[in-house]
Amino acid sequence: MEDLEGGVDYLADERKKAQFDVNAMKIVWAGSQHKLQLSDRMARLVASDPEFKKDDRVRLDRKELFKNTLRKASHAWKRIIELRLTEEEASQLRFFVDQPAYTDLHWGMFVPAIKGQGTEEQQAKWLPLAYRMQIIGCYAQTELGHGSNVQGLETTATFDPETDEFVIHSPTLTSSKWWPGGLGKISTHAIVYARLITDGKEHGVHGFIVQLRSLDDHLALPGITVGDIGMKFGNAAYNTMDNGVLRFDHVRIPRDQMLMRVLQVTREGNVVKSNIPRQLIYGTMVYVRQTIVYDASRALSKAVCIATRYSAVRRQFGSENGRETQVIDYKTQQNRLFPLLASAYAFRIVGDWLSWLYTDVTKRLQANDFSTLPEAHACTAGLKSLTTSVTADAIEECRKLCGGHGYLCSSGLPELFAVYVPACTYEGDNVVLLLQVARILMKTVSQLGSGKQPVGTMAYMGRAEHLLQSQCSVQKAEDWLNPDIVLEAFEARSVRMAVACAKNLSEFSNPEEGFLELSADLVGASTAHCQLIVVSKFIEKLQEDIPGEGVKEQLQALCGIYALSIMGKHLGDFLSTGCIKPKQASLANDLLRSLFSKVRPNAIALVDAFNYTDHFLGSVLGRYDGNVYPKLYEEAWKDPFNDTAVPDGYHEYVRPLLKRQVRTSRL
Amino acid sequence: MEDLEGGVDYLADERKKAQFDVNAMKIVWAGSQHKLQLSDRMARLVASDPEFKKDDRVRLDRKELFKNTLRKASHAWKRIIELRLTEEEASQLRFFVDQPAYTDLHWGMFVPAIKGQGTEEQQAKWLPLAYRMQIIGCYAQTELGHGSNVQGLETTATFDPETDEFVIHSPTLTSSKWWPGGLGKISTHAIVYARLITDGKEHGVHGFIVQLRSLDDHLALPGITVGDIGMKFGNAAYNTMDNGVLRFDHVRIPRDQMLMRVLQVTREGNVVKSNIPRQLIYGTMVYVRQTIVYDASRALSKAVCIATRYSAVRRQFGSENGRETQVIDYKTQQNRLFPLLASAYAFRIVGDWLSWLYTDVTKRLQANDFSTLPEAHACTAGLKSLTTSVTADAIEECRKLCGGHGYLCSSGLPELFAVYVPACTYEGDNVVLLLQVARILMKTVSQLGSGKQPVGTMAYMGRAEHLLQSQCSVQKAEDWLNPDIVLEAFEARSVRMAVACAKNLSEFSNPEEGFLELSADLVGASTAHCQLIVVSKFIEKLQEDIPGEGVKEQLQALCGIYALSIMGKHLGDFLSTGCIKPKQASLANDLLRSLFSKVRPNAIALVDAFNYTDHFLGSVLGRYDGNVYPKLYEEAWKDPFNDTAVPDGYHEYVRPLLKRQVRTSRL
Ligand SMILES: Cc1cc2nc3c(=O)[nH]c(=O)nc-3n(C[C@H](O)[C@H](O)[C@H](O)COP(=O)(O)OP(=O)(O)OC[C@H]3O[C@@H](n4cnc5c(N)ncnc54)[C@H](O)[C@@H]3O)c2cc1C
Ligand SMILES: Cc1cc2nc3c(=O)[nH]c(=O)nc-3n(C[C@H](O)[C@H](O)[C@H](O)COP(=O)(O)OP(=O)(O)OC[C@H]3O[C@@H](n4cnc5c(N)ncnc54)[C@H](O)[C@@H]3O)c2cc1C
Repeated sequence: MEDLEGGVDYLADERKKAQFDVNAMKIVWAGSQHKLQLSDRMARLVASDPEFKKDDRVRLDRKELFKNTLRKASHAWKRIIELRLTEEEASQLRFFVDQPAYTDLHWGMFVPAIKGQGTEEQQAKWLPLAYRMQIIGCYAQTELGHGSNVQGLETTATFDPETDEFVIHSPTLTSSKWWPGGLGKISTHAIVYARLITDGKEHGVHGFIVQLRSLDDHLALPGITVGDIGMKFGNAAYNTMDNGVLRFDHVRIPRDQMLMRVLQVTREGNVVKSNIPRQLIYGTMVYVRQTIVYDASRALSKAVCIATRYSAVRRQFGSENGRETQVIDYKTQQNRLFPLLASAYAFRIVGDWLSWLYTDVTKRLQANDFSTLPEAHACTAGLKSLTTSVTADAIEECRKLCGGHGYLCSSGLPELFAVYVPACTYEGDNVVLLLQVARILMKTVSQLGSGKQPVGTMAYMGRAEHLLQSQCSVQKAEDWLNPDIVLEAFEARSVRMAVACAKNLSEFSNPEEGFLELSADLVGASTAHCQLIVVSKFIEKLQEDIPGEGVKEQLQALCGIYALSIMGKHLGDFLSTGCIKPKQASLANDLLRSLFSKVRPNAIALVDAFNYTDHFLGSVLGRYDGNVYPKLYEEAWKDPFNDTAVPDGYHEYVRPLLKRQVRTSRL
Repeated sequence: MEDLEGGVDYLADERKKAQFDVNAMKIVWAGSQHKLQLSDRMARLVASDPEFKKDDRVRLDRKELFKNTLRKASHAWKRIIELRLTEEEASQLRFFVDQPAYTDLHWGMFVPAIKGQGTEEQQAKWLPLAYRMQIIGCYAQTELGHGSNVQGLETTATFDPETDEFVIHSPTLTSSKWWPGGLGKISTHAIVYARLITDGKEHGVHGFIVQLRSLDDHLALPGITVGDIGMKFGNAAYNTMDNGVLRFDHVRIPRDQMLMRVLQVTREGNVVKSNIPRQLIYGTMVYVRQTIVYDASRALSKAVCIATRYSAVRRQFGSENGRETQVIDYKTQQNRLFPLLASAYAFRIVGDWLSWLYTDVTKRLQANDFSTLPEAHACTAGLKSLTTSVTADAIEECRKLCGGHGYLCSSGLPELFAVYVPACTYEGDNVVLLLQVARILMKTVSQLGSGKQPVGTMAYMGRAEHLLQSQCSVQKAEDWLNPDIVLEAFEARSVRMAVACAKNLSEFSNPEEGFLELSADLVGASTAHCQLIVVSKFIEKLQEDIPGEGVKEQLQALCGIYALSIMGKHLGDFLSTGCIKPKQASLANDLLRSLFSKVRPNAIALVDAFNYTDHFLGSVLGRYDGNVYPKLYEEAWKDPFNDTAVPDGYHEYVRPLLKRQVRTSRL
């Protein structure tokens, strides 16, 4: 987004080089003209409001930081109301405020959980309170001892038929709830996941609405111990959030605070399944994970934007017309950076597609069609894992691409990394998710002979026979520009890895043992499958009509870079399964280099198309105007540590050394 | 190191499983019985001294943190003097204090620079002052605009024959010194690198001793602007260091403060080369980078120790005898963790070997034998790059291996990552270093026909003819246990990649252009070469007599894991160069799995062998006694953020929402 503070654009020459219509690309990135305008408006609203200033964040101590976050959340809420923002606008505004807060969990987990798991009466009672923020909720599932294994949670909810209540209790230390965001200091209510026990019998883990704090004085209610779990990675980062610990000592709640959409407990304590299928819950998971994939493209594009602009500003060695070479012109820099730029676009496209998938699944569920659910579930789980892992690593790579200066908080990258990485862990540990994908892959392979046709993103498996035999036809580098050839190579790799795993599995008499023993290979097969999905969705997108001069050409180049750089990184897969030959790999490498050259003059414009404000980027290195050095210099002097020339501690701990007032008689 | 706070060892069962003599392994790890005893003594000294407590560090604000660091540095100095510690002991003590401080640069860069670049008179004058800390020095090379390209530095040192002085000046904003540790607030002196100018002529970049601050009031001397460059990655991490900014406005220093060992400026302003060869400086670089490799093994082993112990404590899913499975038993966890454990051992062994190499090079230099220098230089540069990149990634992987809890600062891993990652950038950006290695590789290849035999770690290139033809003879998984076969596969891969690059380079009419264009492939060839060095040094170590029951067997298993996991990760290299066949790769994978099973019962003992105190680890998850959950719980409540139940900001920013005192009439 144009932001020329001093009126000078130090990257103007770079922008002039662009060979495509940047505004048209902005629309592609945003999803539509409407979405672009909306996000542009919200981004500017936040950037121009001094209340949302964030460049001092890393210097605040925890309490100040938290107060700062509360202030921003409250101010955002005020603006949302004053400006009568729609839900879409409100969510964009919160996104651009760019500071994790209790409201994320309230809107992102508490409200959806009630919507998804509450009965109509429960929704009618609780949602209006939540919408108006008369109560603030969090999502309390994970415990000190259990995260990934939800069925292992230890908190109990025992029905007491005498009083028509559930007794919520933490029987062990490890059953303490641990991690829920918003819990530590703010939430008045929580959805608590606990083992349902009626009449001495266990009925699995379910959600319960539990009030935690008094609405009068905000103190914990009797029987409840609640607090913050302490400092997390990074300076500001996720420390703006009050991830909490929570223990229950026989806390009683009315029976109607169990979320009863799929399972009900009657007045007598009988457990009755409703006629609503349990799988509905998967719909919510598809939704949440789809937003995570979308967020991956946001975080990744932010890092890439910073590293790309700085790489065009930074000069080191060499010389052209008397000036040193811009580091973006080094092929090693391109080889590290451009695949990440391509991944940002790829993840955005796959994120858009996932939101379509979610709509499709929802429609089908409403029509009682569950046929696509396992595949949709596997696909979102796998893409959540793939995109968050790649993004986390990529942010750190972008930081390294900025050399020493990337290590300063003023580069924005350390905080971006620290705030982003937990996405690899929450909403499903990435390895655990890939193992889930592997189970469905293996099931699909095992059914191949049965006549049951794989659907959705697994459909290519139906052509296994062909793909196990097919030969890659590439003979010259340009052949790799053919999307059909690329797609088939990825499909063949994925099928062959899955089939090889299935074959090895079949040699175990106990399939579960085999699954455990071969799990590392299974994760490899899942990864191949997920990368194929991204490649295929990118290629599908390119079949569409995309307006704007040169826009499609750039996307084609990025698609090629995305696919071929993955091929280079996972070359062992492609070669060992015989999908391609060494000579073809070397041609792919040649083409990749020429695609880098094609993208190079467009690099700055391609990150401009993200349309990010300097406020949102929060990076001196990534400034729109490229005026990096004077601003880095200014930024340093703003640090309160520079208020005094002689630092606190000098007189006690340094001067005595210098003055040999320490007993140093031996030296 | 045994540390059983409550007297209970929750990992006792794990320790009983070990199949080797842990104490003997401790000696292998430490390097000798003497070194083990010494480091053990120093570690306990630090751990038992409350002044060195560090578990509150992440909660201090910058000024408090810095004061805390000054206090520790001063206390360390006092203890060093009181206990009359040797240089070796003092350096170990400082290491276990585990808090970057100005003293690191004083002892690690300032003193060695004077030793290496100063004349005898200069050494006689300055070293005693430095040894007694009557002056404190830093190393001021990098500028705002130039890091990697040292020849591009802009600061000038102009000789003024009238006054017999140099005038040190910062002609541009980008010439501001930027990054030197210890500079921001503490150093009284600096070695400043500047372009030497006499009589209007430039003579390259040289080092000058410049006083920065008054020894009386610690204020900057006239003409000098100095300050701190601001917050860096992580909470405490490297923020204990005052990386600084420095500008000179025509600052005058006496002529004899130019470091004149290799180049002298006479009273008349003539520039005279001394008879001491310039290459001597490379000796210092070999030394500094050797310590970085050694430090990589320390940081990596620390992270691995934490993740391994916690993986044995953490249980999730499955069930054996009614308890859930320890996550260390999952093959995916082993597949991620054990190669890192193996790398820690590998880097330690290669670090030990590098210290021998340094001694060897020094001896040769003294005898005017420069023959091994280019190779030694390339080898240390390459190993610095390889080991620091792997370690940085590995620390983050260890953090992820700990699931959600790894994200808490109390796990120790976030801070370890943040404090470690700049090692990939300082002392040579890792990519720039690999490109330097590539130059020497290409030179070696080009001389192959000439009769000039490659030496040292390049010696295998002399067998290029054989290695280009050789066929891997593996027929069953166990064949991969044969070190000769493994070594030959790595040698063949490295030679073939280097030769392929050389061939591609020869197709360019301008070799520099070719080098730039193919630089990504060249980096690949360098990496292969460096990995080979590590594998070969590990294998060489195993030829030695290693005392202790079962010790050598464990090291053999780790060596196998190290080599085969690299092979798996870079399979594309091995297959595309035809060094191994797909079937052989699959056998390597099978063997790798069985090596994991072999290491599994020994995993805890293998990290115990690092002999780290709980103080040094600084991790609740990595505690020796495995008593993780109660301590995590306690740790949370220690956070001052939990002092009050109702957080600061609640009344202003949350209550009004809950009470609908925000104007919400529309909702
Ligand atoms: C910043 C942050 C915010 C969070 N917010 C919330 C929140 O609001 N509400 C909430 O309820 N929770 C929250 N969580 C918790 C989060 O959901 C869990 O941390 C996550 O589910 C991972 O579980 P875990 O921590 O138990 O990891 P573990 O499962 O203990 O993982 C440890 C290791 O074991 C491995 N592993 C585990 N199971 C298997 C298996 N079957 N096979 C192979 N390997 C395995 C993992 O791959 C990992 O390497 C949050 C966590 C973080 C970090
Ligand atoms: C924590 C920390 C402590 C430090 N302490 C000191 C100190 O005490 N004293 C001191 O003098 N300095 C210090 N430094 C500075 C450090 O030495 C430099 O940051 C380092 O040399 C890297 O240089 P740079 O920052 O200019 O990176 P750049 O060279 O600008 O790197 C930016 C990017 O360009 C790429 N690149 C650069 N040149 C080439 C090329 N020829 N070919 C291909 N790619 C290239 C790099 O790979 C990188 O991706 C410190 C830095 C840090 C982070």
